[in-house]
Amino acid sequence: MIKAGIIGATGYAGAELVRLLLGHREAEIVWYGSRSYVDQSYAKVYQNMFQLVDAVCMDDNMEEMASKVDVIFTATPQGLCASLVKEEILQNVKIVDLSADFRIKDVAVYEKWYGIEHKAPQFIKEAVYGLCEINREKIKKARLIANPGCYPTCSFLSVYPLVKEGLIDPNTLIVDAKSGTSGAGRGAKVDNLFCEVNENIKAYGVAAHRHTPEIEEQLSLAAGKPVLINFTPHLVPMQRGILVTAYASLLKDVSYEEVKAVYDQYYQNEYFVRVLEKDVCPQTRWVEGSNFVDVNVKIDPRTKRVIMMGAMDNLVKGAAGQAVQNMNLMFGLDEAEGLRMAPLFP
Amino acid sequence: MIKAGIIGATGYAGAELVRLLLGHREAEIVWYGSRSYVDQSYAKVYQNMFQLVDAVCMDDNMEEMASKVDVIFTATPQGLCASLVKEEILQNVKIVDLSADFRIKDVAVYEKWYGIEHKAPQFIKEAVYGLCEINREKIKKARLIANPGCYPTCSFLSVYPLVKEGLIDPNTLIVDAKSGTSGAGRGAKVDNLFCEVNENIKAYGVAAHRHTPEIEEQLSLAAGKPVLINFTPHLVPMQRGILVTAYASLLKDVSYEEVKAVYDQYYQNEYFVRVLEKDVCPQTRWVEGSNFVDVNVKIDPRTKRVIMMGAMDNLVKGAAGQAVQNMNLMFGLDEAEGLRMAPLFP
Amino acid sequence: MIKAGIIGATGYAGAELVRLLLGHREAEIVWYGSRSYVDQSYAKVYQNMFQLVDAVCMDDNMEEMASKVDVIFTATPQGLCASLVKEEILQNVKIVDLSADFRIKDVAVYEKWYGIEHKAPQFIKEAVYGLCEINREKIKKARLIANPGCYPTCSFLSVYPLVKEGLIDPNTLIVDAKSGTSGAGRGAKVDNLFCEVNENIKAYGVAAHRHTPEIEEQLSLAAGKPVLINFTPHLVPMQRGILVTAYASLLKDVSYEEVKAVYDQYYQNEYFVRVLEKDVCPQTRWVEGSNFVDVNVKIDPRTKRVIMMGAMDNLVKGAAGQAVQNMNLMFGLDEAEGLRMAPLFP
Amino acid sequence: MIKAGIIGATGYAGAELVRLLLGHREAEIVWYGSRSYVDQSYAKVYQNMFQLVDAVCMDDNMEEMASKVDVIFTATPQGLCASLVKEEILQNVKIVDLSADFRIKDVAVYEKWYGIEHKAPQFIKEAVYGLCEINREKIKKARLIANPGCYPTCSFLSVYPLVKEGLIDPNTLIVDAKSGTSGAGRGAKVDNLFCEVNENIKAYGVAAHRHTPEIEEQLSLAAGKPVLINFTPHLVPMQRGILVTAYASLLKDVSYEEVKAVYDQYYQNEYFVRVLEKDVCPQTRWVEGSNFVDVNVKIDPRTKRVIMMGAMDNLVKGAAGQAVQNMNLMFGLDEAEGLRMAPLFP
Repeated sequence: MIKAGIIGATGYAGAELVRLLLGHREAEIVWYGSRSYVDQSYAKVYQNMFQLVDAVCMDDNMEEMASKVDVIFTATPQGLCASLVKEEILQNVKIVDLSADFRIKDVAVYEKWYGIEHKAPQFIKEAVYGLCEINREKIKKARLIANPGCYPTCSFLSVYPLVKEGLIDPNTLIVDAKSGTSGAGRGAKVDNLFCEVNENIKAYGVAAHRHTPEIEEQLSLAAGKPVLINFTPHLVPMQRGILVTAYASLLKDVSYEEVKAVYDQYYQNEYFVRVLEKDVCPQTRWVEGSNFVDVNVKIDPRTKRVIMMGAMDNLVKGAAGQAVQNMNLMFGLDEAEGLRMAPLFP
Repeated sequence: MIKAGIIGATGYAGAELVRLLLGHREAEIVWYGSRSYVDQSYAKVYQNMFQLVDAVCMDDNMEEMASKVDVIFTATPQGLCASLVKEEILQNVKIVDLSADFRIKDVAVYEKWYGIEHKAPQFIKEAVYGLCEINREKIKKARLIANPGCYPTCSFLSVYPLVKEGLIDPNTLIVDAKSGTSGAGRGAKVDNLFCEVNENIKAYGVAAHRHTPEIEEQLSLAAGKPVLINFTPHLVPMQRGILVTAYASLLKDVSYEEVKAVYDQYYQNEYFVRVLEKDVCPQTRWVEGSNFVDVNVKIDPRTKRVIMMGAMDNLVKGAAGQAVQNMNLMFGLDEAEGLRMAPLFP
Repeated sequence: MIKAGIIGATGYAGAELVRLLLGHREAEIVWYGSRSYVDQSYAKVYQNMFQLVDAVCMDDNMEEMASKVDVIFTATPQGLCASLVKEEILQNVKIVDLSADFRIKDVAVYEKWYGIEHKAPQFIKEAVYGLCEINREKIKKARLIANPGCYPTCSFLSVYPLVKEGLIDPNTLIVDAKSGTSGAGRGAKVDNLFCEVNENIKAYGVAAHRHTPEIEEQLSLAAGKPVLINFTPHLVPMQRGILVTAYASLLKDVSYEEVKAVYDQYYQNEYFVRVLEKDVCPQTRWVEGSNFVDVNVKIDPRTKRVIMMGAMDNLVKGAAGQAVQNMNLMFGLDEAEGLRMAPLFP
Repeated sequence: MIKAGIIGATGYAGAELVRLLLGHREAEIVWYGSRSYVDQSYAKVYQNMFQLVDAVCMDDNMEEMASKVDVIFTATPQGLCASLVKEEILQNVKIVDLSADFRIKDVAVYEKWYGIEHKAPQFIKEAVYGLCEINREKIKKARLIANPGCYPTCSFLSVYPLVKEGLIDPNTLIVDAKSGTSGAGRGAKVDNLFCEVNENIKAYGVAAHRHTPEIEEQLSLAAGKPVLINFTPHLVPMQRGILVTAYASLLKDVSYEEVKAVYDQYYQNEYFVRVLEKDVCPQTRWVEGSNFVDVNVKIDPRTKRVIMMGAMDNLVKGAAGQAVQNMNLMFGLDEAEGLRMAPLFP
């Protein structure tokens, strides 16, 4: 039985980790870390866990935790994981960091977009970007995983095959993304109140969102050259779900069937990426609560562009689910253990 | 492996049965019945099941189904199950009927409130009312289960201990219930459109809802005398969830602690009924997607009334989950098999 | 042109006052008071008012305000109005207090339920409870109006005719109320975040909500004897709207038509109270954005109870609209000026 | 007093026309046309109008209507207006057609995208595209107005100044639009049920939506050359509102201030177009229920693209409000009469 500790167990991503690990047959949570709720019953904070979790929240002491667990998940704001991680810790436990601290290889880019100093740049090179479908073999051998951001996961998986195959010009990529409100976290902010979010849609972080360089770095690796894109996130009045609509110019005349074949080639053995059938658009309702990413494309012969679409649950494949998937790979388990639940609908 | 067939697999309750049975380790669905979608791929109707269910919808032939399955779930409108069931069928398979056909023992009451003739009154006596927490032993031996209605399940479990113990006057009971919209089904009706349901709350079926006699019959059995109540359902702009707020006059001066002790006595061994801690009100968000019923009470010494509250997912404990729980009991399985998932939040 | 000042202009009720007064032909706002946003542009806080309101928020100085305006609206937390009001102020301006400070005549009851000391008990007697349909003539002559609470307005108007006529036993009254989330205010609280409110319904303040004694005091006046009731509010995932479902035992055998005639007698000349037609239940969607209260009743001959229902917009008739209605009466204007907009649907 | 008749008064756009015209001081509705509800009380279909509208629905007889009214609004499916309009009718009344029948000048394009034969091509040339901010003078003299589509109104006004001024390459335009569900109409379809729309976002009509050629035609006129764009609409779980996020490559190095100056130049005298302040993104909540379009832009120097954004209420400026604005212009009234209401929030 793998012993797991969570730092930040009372945020939405942390709570989703709890839900998923409770259903995992080879892992158990032994440390519910939450600086804000130290000594309080976890099930009082998340009452869905009443009679399921019988634990109190503990402080975020990574060193002590490292002596008691096999894997640590950090579901915390940027900067915290980097400020805590040390070589001695990594010699004892594996870490899956759900924050952005180790996602971007160029520390200057990280510091510019996040506006904070990186406290542990020595681990950036070692850290593996935990997009399982792309870096599976590296993940299996990693000590430190940079769990991808929600938008980058959905954006990248939606466009990856065409970038990798050189069928589109990556510098024409425009990613228009839409997210449910759980992505904004559980902080008490006026902007996230029910009456402010409901009956509303807005763009935010336009031309400035921090997930932009993360997506660009992965795209650059896939394209083999530097890529700059436009990325615009939007806030949607729903709880879970990310939808990506991406646009790019085609470099060749290709049919839908040819493009579909490329997607199938890349994803046919990927349990969690579902390439939909022709003319079926991804919808967030069909993946809610699950680790699936649904993708499909549409070609517009009039403009010679392709529209690439992806839908995913931001808290599962976009955060906690992918973290568990990474854990499974790191510990040599069935990659889908604990993640086989069907999407919940309605 | 238990082979299951579903009649009405494309309604919301039927779809929830599919979701739950996919996660059940000792049952598999071999017949997806749906008169409206015969010969169509099930995963095209419910796209969340893409790559999870590889079956086409079949007609509702109960006789043929009975030769191929061990248990039949009928998640269909009132009257259909009664029109199909026969002694020869019941000799081959067990039936869990999610409709109201066999819930009410007095056929005249059924025919009056439902406005249709009962086509199989000969089975009413044999049918067991499948409220597992109350009729567990009978269920284990039953061939035909009348799976309780969503409102009756939540209403009855919320008030049962106090009625049974004679602490309240059951004829003062007023049950004010609120339900998510999935309870209204997947029929294409203007009243259930997003723009009609959203930003709205309304009562419906006031003093006339068909679940009233079902609740009253069970209450009468518990009280040992005829009981008449007021029951008012309301439609809430959410997908899942039922909340019951019930009021009754206390027959004795009792403290909260005494009442709590009564609830604990009845429910402490019931995995799916969670008696909350003092001053914690049930909320539908804490049970979503799960088979739990959360209950609690509040005493008002000023009016000498008790307010009893219960929250539950109408599609799980109020329909498909309870049906699976009944199946588990009928086949001698662990009662909670396939139903242990934690509630999904947010 | 009546000059109006608002204390608390950046709460939801205050903002609704701004919306309504902008459409009022005989009033204009000259003071936007908001302690939290002093010196900030009002239209930056409420961007719907961009290019419509060209003013900055000012402090809550009631004395200075009194020298510049004809009427002051206080849309503030309990206690503030009582702490500011003085005889010299009331000699200069009329005050419509949207808080509870002057609603309850018995200061001991106020202090018990609200848990604060009343700072201006000397004005309680003079203050008029501003339920226009009941106290119209007193309002016309008042200097200080206690604008009724949202739940009390809807609850009381829904049951008033039957209480006044002695057709029901008021001590059997149970008021089960449901409110949209704007009633919870614009404070940044986790409980009011989108992800916590959406897909959820809960009761709160059970047997302890502060609107209970307010409703009881008005009912006692109507019944001519002390009345105790049960009142249970619920939070509904919608922005606006209150629905009241009230239950009471009938003291006589009466038909729906007889009860309807009583309602018509009380309300046929009331523009803002609409007695619906037989079997039509009030719904919040049909009053949104308007000052209407829709009411109707249903008789249950089985239990000899009557179910009384009312729907209203909590921010309009339940707060800002009724405040404007009171202002209109106090200044001798057409009672409906500024309040004739039809409900917005969908 | 202008007498107005509505064909299709019971759809969402028709109902919004009723709401707006009830508040209009110089127009009154004398004919509520609704083929589906002939002889039924209008206020029974739209209960918000109880005691406000005392009329029964009538058939869609345009000829008879033309003898009784001054202006006819057709809020009906494509093809109906074209099938009814005749020279004799246009000699008697003005027509504002809310359908697409007369929006596209090239009848072949109309017939291809809409898949129906145009029944009155002889009026296409005469019909004026009723985008008031662009075609004001032509509208004043028109007999037949093609009221613009909801998406085209918001899309076009968001990008128009930069296209007209030649600052962007119009053939790089990508319009990613998001709409509330009222845009899908009041038809009883499974896809528009609450449980299907809520907690979901999806693209639809990808590379094939009928509003594409309408936007392109207007853009081509503005650019002075043929323009092809990508247009992708999305369905959002809210009732009202359209948000447009549009992307294009800049043809020159320009600063935000220069671009802002261009928008101000085009819109500073337009009451209904609000150019927001720097870094403020349009949001649908700030225009709900009003005739405003809020626009703003963001420049991305990294990619040399500009992101243009617009928010609007699809039922008001996107349908009924613009129709009333057109009527006002045609009859020489104040253009904003009946349309000055502030946006409703929350």
